[in-house]
Amino acid sequence: MKFDLGIRVGHLLTMKEGKGEVQKDYFVGVEGNRIASIVPFKDELVSACKRFINAPDKIMIPGLINSHTHLGMSLFRGFEDDVTFHQWLFEFVFPVEAKLVDEEFVRVGSELSALECIRFGTTTVSDMYFFPEVTAGVLDRAGMRGLVGQHLADFIAPDEKKFGDQAVATRRERFLQFFEKYKSHPRIQPAIAPHAPYTCSDELIQMVTKISQECGIKVHMHVCETTGEVEESIQKFGKTPVKRLYDLGALHENLIAAHSVHLTDEEIELFKKTNTSVVYNPDANLKLSSGIAPVTRYRKMGIKVALGTDGAASNNDLSLFGAMDIGTKIQKLSNHDNTAMVALDALNMVTYEAAKVLGLQDRVGSIEVGKLADLVLLDTHHPHTQPLHSVLSQLVYAYQGLEVNTVICDGKILLENGHFKTLDPAVVQKDVDHMRIKIENAL
Amino acid sequence: MKFDLGIRVGHLLTMKEGKGEVQKDYFVGVEGNRIASIVPFKDELVSACKRFINAPDKIMIPGLINSHTHLGMSLFRGFEDDVTFHQWLFEFVFPVEAKLVDEEFVRVGSELSALECIRFGTTTVSDMYFFPEVTAGVLDRAGMRGLVGQHLADFIAPDEKKFGDQAVATRRERFLQFFEKYKSHPRIQPAIAPHAPYTCSDELIQMVTKISQECGIKVHMHVCETTGEVEESIQKFGKTPVKRLYDLGALHENLIAAHSVHLTDEEIELFKKTNTSVVYNPDANLKLSSGIAPVTRYRKMGIKVALGTDGAASNNDLSLFGAMDIGTKIQKLSNHDNTAMVALDALNMVTYEAAKVLGLQDRVGSIEVGKLADLVLLDTHHPHTQPLHSVLSQLVYAYQGLEVNTVICDGKILLENGHFKTLDPAVVQKDVDHMRIKIENAL
Repeated sequence: MKFDLGIRVGHLLTMKEGKGEVQKDYFVGVEGNRIASIVPFKDELVSACKRFINAPDKIMIPGLINSHTHLGMSLFRGFEDDVTFHQWLFEFVFPVEAKLVDEEFVRVGSELSALECIRFGTTTVSDMYFFPEVTAGVLDRAGMRGLVGQHLADFIAPDEKKFGDQAVATRRERFLQFFEKYKSHPRIQPAIAPHAPYTCSDELIQMVTKISQECGIKVHMHVCETTGEVEESIQKFGKTPVKRLYDLGALHENLIAAHSVHLTDEEIELFKKTNTSVVYNPDANLKLSSGIAPVTRYRKMGIKVALGTDGAASNNDLSLFGAMDIGTKIQKLSNHDNTAMVALDALNMVTYEAAKVLGLQDRVGSIEVGKLADLVLLDTHHPHTQPLHSVLSQLVYAYQGLEVNTVICDGKILLENGHFKTLDPAVVQKDVDHMRIKIENAL
Repeated sequence: MKFDLGIRVGHLLTMKEGKGEVQKDYFVGVEGNRIASIVPFKDELVSACKRFINAPDKIMIPGLINSHTHLGMSLFRGFEDDVTFHQWLFEFVFPVEAKLVDEEFVRVGSELSALECIRFGTTTVSDMYFFPEVTAGVLDRAGMRGLVGQHLADFIAPDEKKFGDQAVATRRERFLQFFEKYKSHPRIQPAIAPHAPYTCSDELIQMVTKISQECGIKVHMHVCETTGEVEESIQKFGKTPVKRLYDLGALHENLIAAHSVHLTDEEIELFKKTNTSVVYNPDANLKLSSGIAPVTRYRKMGIKVALGTDGAASNNDLSLFGAMDIGTKIQKLSNHDNTAMVALDALNMVTYEAAKVLGLQDRVGSIEVGKLADLVLLDTHHPHTQPLHSVLSQLVYAYQGLEVNTVICDGKILLENGHFKTLDPAVVQKDVDHMRIKIENAL
């Protein structure tokens, strides 16, 4: 047998070189965890496969990449919606997190999120939250891929409480332990995630930058999500948040700046100059009325842009299909131009371009021989997915997420015909029920 | 047996009086096509039902109402996306329609759309297209409810070609025939649908208004979708489109003004004064970069607002869940206020308030004893639908449409556990395949 897994697919969108070419009736062969063959389908190929999936009516796309999320927060989904951003963050999220978030909370939230990601065809995430080793463990068991960022801020976070007055002093040492544990993991990559300029001192930002350089890892940070934080920075530091990061040496090619909604021309130039990347989170930015990030402009200038869902507490789902749809449509609106952002742009931001943002371009982001086998099969039989004039248009403007039929990550099947193959949803549901009651009793 | 159908449901959102109360573990009993009982569930109720559906984990909501769509256009889904509005309408939609649209095209498109509506929990539509008797027939066979509007404009439409030089002269007479045929139908209501002020002469608008008064029917019209048409009206008529309609006597409580994106203060006052209703189509308005309708302001002033998906050629799906999500989020953004539009507002625009817009408030729009049995059951077991802190938040911000499990309209089951019970999707798919090739060969 030449292939461990072979798939015949009706419509293959490889996203190779970020292009939107669609091949009809193709075969993708997998050896171990790698893509070994991409050729027009022929009957003879079936016998060369240890396992063969026949999907002549389905679409295959690369495993999707969600570049900004907080997996552990899905337990807050829909709990305190429709309030102001300030109320949401300071009166709800931070206090409830301080009270409730522990390893168990992050485990259950991350498991629920991992199931949701898999259900919606997401195989790689870039996460930022407390207890990153817990999330890393969940992603490992789920069979997913991810950058897992240790959350850091000036306040003592839930995962630092137990270190008492040594919490701040031991941050570097503790992060390096986390880094050592996961640095060689085939699917999990440690990252460091200072919350945001407005919650991080100069000292903390400098420490993070140093660690990033020493370990060669990504820094994942919220940047300029709201106008309020920009104004606050100017008042407090006499400069905009991005100028402050620049002056601290914290803008560099390993910085993943989530949101980046409100940047001045000078700040955009600094992003370009330093090769800083952006993650666009349209759902959360609208829901919290933060604004519309000028990502069309960023990309024209050569700044790399990936797409994120943000956490389920501010979206309220982790479907990149929803994010592609809303994200593309509001760019058309804000640019007063239907052609400002098109379906292919959105698909790039969750595949080829996203992989570059996360530094994973040699491994994932497109279906190419030699890359890792992260593959998603989508149904086309639903009424809203017909007629199939354009695979690109359908995926961005009509698909929702639940059309995902089968998900493969690193050559392993995580979802098959809609059934989960790694985490057990019934077991997770029991824990979610328990945590739901705990949260509802906490306020 | 007291009830023809009885349903035990875990979470019942009745939308009675437009309120968002959720009852837990309730029973809804149906006699014939009407809701006969809404009480807390008790075991004894099971034996009182000829047919019983046990759904203790599901959410029940009223059948959803899509107040602006073009069912026949779903065959154009994704065919010519990402171009300007003008290109889309004048270089693509109108010419291809002129070439291809016939009774067969409208039948197949409407069947595909009816399946999609049912799949996504929509039981009532307000449609505007050519060959309305074909669409009415499809809705009838599908078991759905609908206002079916005869499209009219200054140009000779595909359904008028065969009348040659009598096309314009026979319009009134032909409409009255359509009206007579459907005026007593239990689920289909004829309406008249002049395309838009910019495509309708004063004479045509006056004829339509007269017919509306004589027959007591709704007028369904695109109004102020783009800034371009407003400017054109001022140039051509010396007044804005809405002022022109007002001067022609065409603003009244039976006018359903789809879009209404660009209205001056004076025009908004005229809508209020005349009790004109609005249909908000956020997906299409963003995708065609038309703008964001100020619906929060309309509703504060007492103008009734319903939600629509528009046609699948400009959305690209008919899911009201997607429209609620995007529609609520962009109101938060455009009002710079997270609380400007909340989940309950969106739900009202597809249920209670929508029924008022369509003049169906005595029949549908809420789950109440005496109203018609249009009921939707939604699954709650998907990862993205958990935890269920808030039914309202989940429905608007997390649900997509495919979570719909069972759909009942007029007491009849149209979808059961995701399976279609009226139209046959396999038969429709064959016709869609045939039409897809015809469209792709037409350009």
